[in-house]
Amino acid sequence: MNRPSNQLFDVYFTSAPMREVFSDRGRVQGMLDFEAALARAEARTGVIPATAVDAVEAACHAEHYDLCALAEAVATAGNSAIPLVKALGRQVAANDPDAEKYVHLGATSQDAMDTGLVLQLRQALALLETDLRRLGDALADQAARHAEIPMAGRTWLQHATPVTLGMKIAGWLGAVTRHRQRLAELRPRLLCLQFGGASGSLAALGEQAWPVSEALAGELGLNLPDQPWHTQRDRLVEFASLLGLIAGSLGKLGRDLALLMQTDVGEVFEPAAPGKGGSSTMPHKRNPVGCAVMIAAATRAPGLVATMLSALPQEHERSLGLWHAEWETLPELCCLVSGALSQALIAVPALEVDGERLRGNLELTRGLVLAEAVSIALAQRVGREKAHELVEQCCKQAVAEGRHLRGVLRDSPEVSSRFNDAELDRLLDPANYLGQARRWVERAVAEHHALNE
Amino acid sequence: MNRPSNQLFDVYFTSAPMREVFSDRGRVQGMLDFEAALARAEARTGVIPATAVDAVEAACHAEHYDLCALAEAVATAGNSAIPLVKALGRQVAANDPDAEKYVHLGATSQDAMDTGLVLQLRQALALLETDLRRLGDALADQAARHAEIPMAGRTWLQHATPVTLGMKIAGWLGAVTRHRQRLAELRPRLLCLQFGGASGSLAALGEQAWPVSEALAGELGLNLPDQPWHTQRDRLVEFASLLGLIAGSLGKLGRDLALLMQTDVGEVFEPAAPGKGGSSTMPHKRNPVGCAVMIAAATRAPGLVATMLSALPQEHERSLGLWHAEWETLPELCCLVSGALSQALIAVPALEVDGERLRGNLELTRGLVLAEAVSIALAQRVGREKAHELVEQCCKQAVAEGRHLRGVLRDSPEVSSRFNDAELDRLLDPANYLGQARRWVERAVAEHHALNE
Amino acid sequence: MNRPSNQLFDVYFTSAPMREVFSDRGRVQGMLDFEAALARAEARTGVIPATAVDAVEAACHAEHYDLCALAEAVATAGNSAIPLVKALGRQVAANDPDAEKYVHLGATSQDAMDTGLVLQLRQALALLETDLRRLGDALADQAARHAEIPMAGRTWLQHATPVTLGMKIAGWLGAVTRHRQRLAELRPRLLCLQFGGASGSLAALGEQAWPVSEALAGELGLNLPDQPWHTQRDRLVEFASLLGLIAGSLGKLGRDLALLMQTDVGEVFEPAAPGKGGSSTMPHKRNPVGCAVMIAAATRAPGLVATMLSALPQEHERSLGLWHAEWETLPELCCLVSGALSQALIAVPALEVDGERLRGNLELTRGLVLAEAVSIALAQRVGREKAHELVEQCCKQAVAEGRHLRGVLRDSPEVSSRFNDAELDRLLDPANYLGQARRWVERAVAEHHALNE
Amino acid sequence: MNRPSNQLFDVYFTSAPMREVFSDRGRVQGMLDFEAALARAEARTGVIPATAVDAVEAACHAEHYDLCALAEAVATAGNSAIPLVKALGRQVAANDPDAEKYVHLGATSQDAMDTGLVLQLRQALALLETDLRRLGDALADQAARHAEIPMAGRTWLQHATPVTLGMKIAGWLGAVTRHRQRLAELRPRLLCLQFGGASGSLAALGEQAWPVSEALAGELGLNLPDQPWHTQRDRLVEFASLLGLIAGSLGKLGRDLALLMQTDVGEVFEPAAPGKGGSSTMPHKRNPVGCAVMIAAATRAPGLVATMLSALPQEHERSLGLWHAEWETLPELCCLVSGALSQALIAVPALEVDGERLRGNLELTRGLVLAEAVSIALAQRVGREKAHELVEQCCKQAVAEGRHLRGVLRDSPEVSSRFNDAELDRLLDPANYLGQARRWVERAVAEHHALNE
Repeated sequence: MNRPSNQLFDVYFTSAPMREVFSDRGRVQGMLDFEAALARAEARTGVIPATAVDAVEAACHAEHYDLCALAEAVATAGNSAIPLVKALGRQVAANDPDAEKYVHLGATSQDAMDTGLVLQLRQALALLETDLRRLGDALADQAARHAEIPMAGRTWLQHATPVTLGMKIAGWLGAVTRHRQRLAELRPRLLCLQFGGASGSLAALGEQAWPVSEALAGELGLNLPDQPWHTQRDRLVEFASLLGLIAGSLGKLGRDLALLMQTDVGEVFEPAAPGKGGSSTMPHKRNPVGCAVMIAAATRAPGLVATMLSALPQEHERSLGLWHAEWETLPELCCLVSGALSQALIAVPALEVDGERLRGNLELTRGLVLAEAVSIALAQRVGREKAHELVEQCCKQAVAEGRHLRGVLRDSPEVSSRFNDAELDRLLDPANYLGQARRWVERAVAEHHALNE
Repeated sequence: MNRPSNQLFDVYFTSAPMREVFSDRGRVQGMLDFEAALARAEARTGVIPATAVDAVEAACHAEHYDLCALAEAVATAGNSAIPLVKALGRQVAANDPDAEKYVHLGATSQDAMDTGLVLQLRQALALLETDLRRLGDALADQAARHAEIPMAGRTWLQHATPVTLGMKIAGWLGAVTRHRQRLAELRPRLLCLQFGGASGSLAALGEQAWPVSEALAGELGLNLPDQPWHTQRDRLVEFASLLGLIAGSLGKLGRDLALLMQTDVGEVFEPAAPGKGGSSTMPHKRNPVGCAVMIAAATRAPGLVATMLSALPQEHERSLGLWHAEWETLPELCCLVSGALSQALIAVPALEVDGERLRGNLELTRGLVLAEAVSIALAQRVGREKAHELVEQCCKQAVAEGRHLRGVLRDSPEVSSRFNDAELDRLLDPANYLGQARRWVERAVAEHHALNE
Repeated sequence: MNRPSNQLFDVYFTSAPMREVFSDRGRVQGMLDFEAALARAEARTGVIPATAVDAVEAACHAEHYDLCALAEAVATAGNSAIPLVKALGRQVAANDPDAEKYVHLGATSQDAMDTGLVLQLRQALALLETDLRRLGDALADQAARHAEIPMAGRTWLQHATPVTLGMKIAGWLGAVTRHRQRLAELRPRLLCLQFGGASGSLAALGEQAWPVSEALAGELGLNLPDQPWHTQRDRLVEFASLLGLIAGSLGKLGRDLALLMQTDVGEVFEPAAPGKGGSSTMPHKRNPVGCAVMIAAATRAPGLVATMLSALPQEHERSLGLWHAEWETLPELCCLVSGALSQALIAVPALEVDGERLRGNLELTRGLVLAEAVSIALAQRVGREKAHELVEQCCKQAVAEGRHLRGVLRDSPEVSSRFNDAELDRLLDPANYLGQARRWVERAVAEHHALNE
Repeated sequence: MNRPSNQLFDVYFTSAPMREVFSDRGRVQGMLDFEAALARAEARTGVIPATAVDAVEAACHAEHYDLCALAEAVATAGNSAIPLVKALGRQVAANDPDAEKYVHLGATSQDAMDTGLVLQLRQALALLETDLRRLGDALADQAARHAEIPMAGRTWLQHATPVTLGMKIAGWLGAVTRHRQRLAELRPRLLCLQFGGASGSLAALGEQAWPVSEALAGELGLNLPDQPWHTQRDRLVEFASLLGLIAGSLGKLGRDLALLMQTDVGEVFEPAAPGKGGSSTMPHKRNPVGCAVMIAAATRAPGLVATMLSALPQEHERSLGLWHAEWETLPELCCLVSGALSQALIAVPALEVDGERLRGNLELTRGLVLAEAVSIALAQRVGREKAHELVEQCCKQAVAEGRHLRGVLRDSPEVSSRFNDAELDRLLDPANYLGQARRWVERAVAEHHALNE
């Protein structure tokens, strides 16, 4: 079979370990792990002879199977478990003809596919948790490092009062911390056995159904759900939604960073690397190639989450079509988020900060971003209303004359009679008007560390 | 101002209490509650004189404000808080000119809008929790009541082995229980104060910023977040995602029920009501008008959740456009889910069950849905392989000859020599092949009750 | 009935005429126009007596109906036509008891609802066409006016080679022109009669079904489709998709403009207006309140289009749930696009351009954005490779030493021996390196004018 | 490099030719075709020496390139054209060192990527057009073949008045015909050259830019757009929307068919094939494995279209992130639609129709679906009101007594005095109450044939 590849952007958009989890091999191994565990569980509970287990386990290795042939057979069977179980039967029979009849006993295709998926998702969760923790560590470091660096706050993309770079980074960190909490909360709901047989009643296993279920969950280290969830897919979609949230938060990080990297701003940068995002004739160019991945993931995830949500109303005991719509969508989401995380893990620990531009941009409005600070100080001397009026007039004059607010304030007798030059300088220094910025950093870092323990 | 209404489907698609929460009045009152609490908090911490509080509180009632004028002013201001705070100032000044200058002190528009929204969401959460609990109660009742009623299991919309009506209802219940758990988990993350001032640093309040924050959160009964979340919107979107999940689960309930109500199936029905979904010339018609609402909500929610996810990457300290995209979307989601819940609360407690059709439909395949039961019983006498082969042959013969499987099995010497007529009847009785169906009901009901305590 | 309003953002996000089209009154009038036309058509074809027409027409005015009562009745009936037709019957009977029985003859509820919708959409199309044409006119004017104004081209949000402001505006114009073409193409498909009776066969009208159909289409000025389209909704969704495209193009316009309005860029602005997007203490602030609407519409439209697409697979002859999902979604899309268009029509004709910042920003990289121009000119004297190498070295030196490229080139004997100062100045002048920018403007304007004729 | 495959569902969900078009090889060849044509165009216009063309063309074959190495390089470069053009340069240089410098002259990466994509889309369009035409042919055949086969019309999933199978199929056909019209309309907009150089002005090519553009478009057989469309992506998204529409229409076909295949309905079936959708123990089972693909595509497409729409607001002259979001999304849409079309092309020409079930199901309501027919005939004798009242009473009686409407009518003196048994039989025969069903078939087939000519 000729299988044209479609992986040109895989390295850029996704992480290698996550691709591996959701590769064809990974899918097949997930189902085979279910089948092997089922054999062990049924042997432990006396449903099948203990002697059959070895043959089944020996056959439960993905490398025994021809993935191309499997893909062809899926198109006839309508799912991947039917042809795999057939092939598994043949593989078992080749070594132990008697054992063949104990393969997949009492299970339905969806049991193998869904439990296999849950086993893949457990690996995906581990990757995500590690990456989110590492990203949290990096963000906590950077937030602390830049806790005292003032920069222009920007609302509606307009300069507002000053903030700090650390506070901005602490905002990114807070979201990561919450995502880790969410992941921990949904984990027990998500990592559940699927085992129901044909219509979900496990009738074929008679009285032994429940002991087998318990043994099987034990073998796989999965929780036993209230009942099979063949057409109750909220567990999966809850996870998909969280992936969407993570993608969105990384998109915010990427968006902020790309805006800061603008030639017109030039304050903070993704790290440079040889050949990365550069141009030979335009040496000033620093294309945010990592931010692009984060923004792309945040752009693609909502549609994929919507697909998963749309696929929730699955009919009766097994859906046609809606279930199918999940098969490639959830893995795609996992992979896109893994890629965005990878890029954040490259960018954040090695952020480059141009202190000069940061300071210079704060002066772009010639002191206006500090007008509020002056007004508040003045209010303590002349009253709120009077202060506001005075400062507003000075601001307008500064804009009209293209001057720095400092000079205008100094020239105003009503201001200069209350504040000497040093006091005015202090008031107009962004470093003195940062409010709770340091507290925000400390709180975000503390929450991060609390979670790590 | 002429305000054309657009509410023709409100009663059908949404619940009245939820509409009230997210009405213009509800929005405005949410912001005013923030402003009143801010005045109290600032008075408690000595930032403003205690004497100012009364005037502010007196003005903080939505009925003082002209919603039409406000809507016009929003279009110039770019948000709803700027014109409301102006109007509030005028209202306060009319009674107490001095108090006017203490209005909204240190806050930014988004503080009022977001905290106001959180106060609305607290009401929405209460409505949802009540409705979900009531729906859980109704489902638990119905699952228990119908725990022993066999019906055709349907996979791929084809008859499969039998299930019970109770087990199907228990599946619906399980999802409701999990949604209630999720709601409880996200509640503390969602119900957080928003208070950051212009760029989020609270600089304008100087040293008193933190005490005011604590007092304000206390006044409102909200949690204090790690830092302001003006552009970290994951709290809201997490909630939106859960609304999407609930809509999807209700869509599954509605889809199942609509399929069962098909003229061709006729097993379970929404309750009838005078004029509801009927037709004078076609008295057999029972249009599932409640299911339509549940399915419609499940169809609309994914796109709205996707919008919320798409709006996550909000720029710097305040976004333009992405923030705006949330304002009507999250309320719409809340209202649609409230409507779907209302319909489920009408349908579930009063489900009509046609026992005759349930039994009749189980016979539609003339015994084939029980072939597995016979095969398994036979295996204990003749071995698995032999049994399977025999039964398969009988099934094919039954289909070919248009006969009931029972007759074919009786005619088969190899079967009838092992099972007498009574035994065959027992094997072919769906009631004897329900597996763990009762257990699933018990587990789902138990989880529901555990949550209620 | 107490109907809480939910219209706080209507004025900001939508246009008044479009709101009017999709108001409750508009919906009801659309259905009544169908009913009146049906009576006329059936009278013309002899199906009902001519004398009945007057009574029906007299009753077909929305102001006769209690919209609140209708909204309540919708919730029982499951759609809006059933209670309206009942109320219409009563209204007719009050004047002419005999005429009542000729109301709605042979039609089904969906005929009234869908044809009514199409009549509303015809009004919406007219509004959109007018606004798009006016926007095209304004963009064509502005593109021509600024055809020679160089500005920094920006790729990946980094300065690249120069473009012109006119060329950027011409890009916005091109999209508008294409949308107008699309609108013209889909118009005949969209503006189609819906008339099929109970299951779509028009059986109740017997032999007269076809003549009535033709007369009805004629009365309403609608096309006769191949057959009723009760569950073939591609016509509507095609239009929804176009609305999504328009929203996206306006979002691009809004995004570009908001980026140009950044305090750090300050090149082009939405027009100022008293109180619009301003701040008293920060007079430099120009919040892009119009761009916010365009971006918000572009953020919300995709989810709404997805809903319409998701609702396509409508079951058999009439869907439950999927059809319902359209009812509020398509109007919402129309209204959001109308609001984004309104804002574009405010912003584009009155764009404010800061020529000084445009020129200044082009110099931000100290000549590097023109390095390509020098390299190409030099190539004609020293060969491509040599030229590239020389210029690249000079660029690196300029960056390293923080100097303007002009000075470094002048200091390079290999460059200064080939170009004198005037020649270098000419090469480093962006106005001389604008390529086809003027042609792009001319082509876009010409396409616009061709469409207007 | 180890590239884990992820193609297990490719054969089932997509068509092989479409996968080939959008394979990595297909992408690379698209870009190389652009580069080769650019060399020819520049040679024709004298920009580069004619002698360079051969070397470039010889190197422009995808098989010369290491796709794995390319994928790695994409992650550094941020797009696929930069590393490919580098590799192309090396490949050219190996044969003709002088020719290397003429590679990609004046173009930017996005020119190669976008034009390459357009060349792929041209192939995709051809595949779609062929498949849609073939599907139209098959539907026209089937509609004609079953034009006289009555079946229960179903509204809200309830039996309504009769329709014909042909009329239902004609509905599916009508949508296909409209999609073909849409495809023809958007084709000239979509198949456009992308050629703008660094910022879209083609400045690097000086005076020769326009002649090169014209020659390049000619070489590739593409239209010349008004200007480069690097960040005006409506052309692509219009096509994506149409793919969404096609998926939705096929989803409707699949949904209808799956509903008809229900064990409880059993009227029309996907063709059987060995091993396809079957079960050894439940020989009545006919899993609609083809419908599942159509429904899955209709479930996944909306989210993918939403992604494309969300990516429209691309910044300035080249976007970061939004552009990237398109790269895999549009190919995925094309492939999913190709798979749904393939399944429709398997199902439609070989539909299996169970005439007995069709007739039997029409009798399920014991004549009630024909009550309207009797009422209308009776009205001509006794007046409309009287007729309606009489028939309604008979219907209620029939339901109450579990009898066929025929018997009740016969027993009613007021009915039997007007209609003899033969007349009643005629009225209660669905074949006599099919209205315009045949006309709908004829019109749909005629429109289909008109398009074919």
